[in-house]
Amino acid sequence: MIRAAAARLHGHARRTPLLSSPFLDQIAGRRVWVKPECLQHTGSFKYRGGYSAVSALKDTVRARGVLAFSSGNHAQGVALAAAQHGVPSVIIMPSDAPAMKIANTRALGAEVVLYDRAGESREELGDALQTERNLTLIRPYDEPQVMAGQGTTGLEIAEDAKAMGITQADVLVCCGGGGLTSGIALALEAEASGLRARPCEPEGFDDTARSLASGWIQRNARTSGGLCDAIVTPQPGEITFPIMQRLCGPGLVVTEDEVLQAMALAWGRLKLVAEPGGAVALAAALFLANAIDGDDVIVTISGGNVDAAVFSRALADYGDLD
Amino acid sequence: MIRAAAARLHGHARRTPLLSSPFLDQIAGRRVWVKPECLQHTGSFKYRGGYSAVSALKDTVRARGVLAFSSGNHAQGVALAAAQHGVPSVIIMPSDAPAMKIANTRALGAEVVLYDRAGESREELGDALQTERNLTLIRPYDEPQVMAGQGTTGLEIAEDAKAMGITQADVLVCCGGGGLTSGIALALEAEASGLRARPCEPEGFDDTARSLASGWIQRNARTSGGLCDAIVTPQPGEITFPIMQRLCGPGLVVTEDEVLQAMALAWGRLKLVAEPGGAVALAAALFLANAIDGDDVIVTISGGNVDAAVFSRALADYGDLD
Repeated sequence: MIRAAAARLHGHARRTPLLSSPFLDQIAGRRVWVKPECLQHTGSFKYRGGYSAVSALKDTVRARGVLAFSSGNHAQGVALAAAQHGVPSVIIMPSDAPAMKIANTRALGAEVVLYDRAGESREELGDALQTERNLTLIRPYDEPQVMAGQGTTGLEIAEDAKAMGITQADVLVCCGGGGLTSGIALALEAEASGLRARPCEPEGFDDTARSLASGWIQRNARTSGGLCDAIVTPQPGEITFPIMQRLCGPGLVVTEDEVLQAMALAWGRLKLVAEPGGAVALAAALFLANAIDGDDVIVTISGGNVDAAVFSRALADYGDLD
Repeated sequence: MIRAAAARLHGHARRTPLLSSPFLDQIAGRRVWVKPECLQHTGSFKYRGGYSAVSALKDTVRARGVLAFSSGNHAQGVALAAAQHGVPSVIIMPSDAPAMKIANTRALGAEVVLYDRAGESREELGDALQTERNLTLIRPYDEPQVMAGQGTTGLEIAEDAKAMGITQADVLVCCGGGGLTSGIALALEAEASGLRARPCEPEGFDDTARSLASGWIQRNARTSGGLCDAIVTPQPGEITFPIMQRLCGPGLVVTEDEVLQAMALAWGRLKLVAEPGGAVALAAALFLANAIDGDDVIVTISGGNVDAAVFSRALADYGDLD
């Protein structure tokens, strides 16, 4: 499914490279290779999964339109994919999502429906809209075609690592519901068995790390708030978790201060814009070096959709790199 | 020479892509293709010219070391190229260069000598150091092997434009002394005759635009100050100007406010960090649309080495994209 998704995405998704900086290598104490999915269309890897899912629908089903709920990146990915297929999209977004993500989703042609993350159930809202308008729901992570699309990131990592002679390395993945992590893990299992995916999360939202450690799905105490809005989910997915359990190494958990510092270093050393949720894996590579094995580490920057105020905070706190 | 430089740079310089965003296309009223040389090693295209020049030296000459004067980007390019060849480098930098550029140049292994841009002649300082230590001077733009290295950017633009079916377009180039502009112009002449290079400069430092308009080399009234430190030169080069005169379209001149706005848009829409001097061409594409012809425009972002204070100013003024 991942290879088939890659074929559908060919000529649509950007083929992102692996970037590096001697300054980051020095901090991490090993070579750090960065997969910049912030450069992907819509500013995050979510375009891969959105396009994969929309393109996999039967024409007659797709023509009725698609529905998604998302804090922002999946929203934009599905909205653009729907627009590129000439079909309508309705996106249910939390009212506290970054303003830029809401505005971008609308600009990409979607109808946006806002809900209160603390008081309303997005699932109930989605069910109602699905029934009313006969739309197809594109789930953000617990959906095989979405996971297959995200997994194309892993095929590219495997190909580039092989070309560079990297046969053993941890691949750190920014993890919310686990769509990207499980997709990459499956791709690596098939194409680069010496590479091991590891989910990375922020403190307070480390449901996947705790689930992997305990062997059972664990929930987060909070389901909103925190800096890393893009990867705040209540718990790992029911489809994604068993895959992560079978294939992934232990989870890595970073502080919000480490995330802000990683954002500033991506800005200064890679000239890339990372959003907080997109910088957790880089933060883990840089600041949890003792929890990682090997001479090389591969890191996803999963997205770059961040408001100016948050980005300026990272620069104010950590932007002075001299 | 450009093709030979490309062969030497193969496996060393990053092959940067052409990026785009529907949001930028909408502002410009045409398709905007961005060549992100901020993603190049050392954060600017200058690595190409530095590596080209250092790698072209005879082994015995190179072993004695190289010398460069630069406001920062050429400095870093030459410093890294020298380090990669295992030879010493001495870099003469203005004392008002961005702190990050000075720090990075030192971190890349160079010996940095600071001078006062208003009161001292960097050429005299360079002559003295050259004589004393028998170093080879790598000029920042009026040096054929440097121009050839920068021209490899143009070979890549020509190749990608051809693959996308773009046969007619202006190629907007951030222009200081004209090394990148003349190098790209020569590459396009050979490989993509329907693409035309056009130098872009900030107000107050539009020596190249005025020189092209008048037919004679014109100087800037000021030789320091302004936001766009990377492309502040007294006048176009003696080798670069006749090439630009023969091959380039008219120069484009943008305001510093337009530059800050372009930086914020590169941040928000491309997830790229552009320095002020590296954003002038994007500013011209977005805000001088009437001075540009065709359905497509190709734009260099020539570098991303900017201090946090300046970047935060761009975000504070123009970072709210909703």
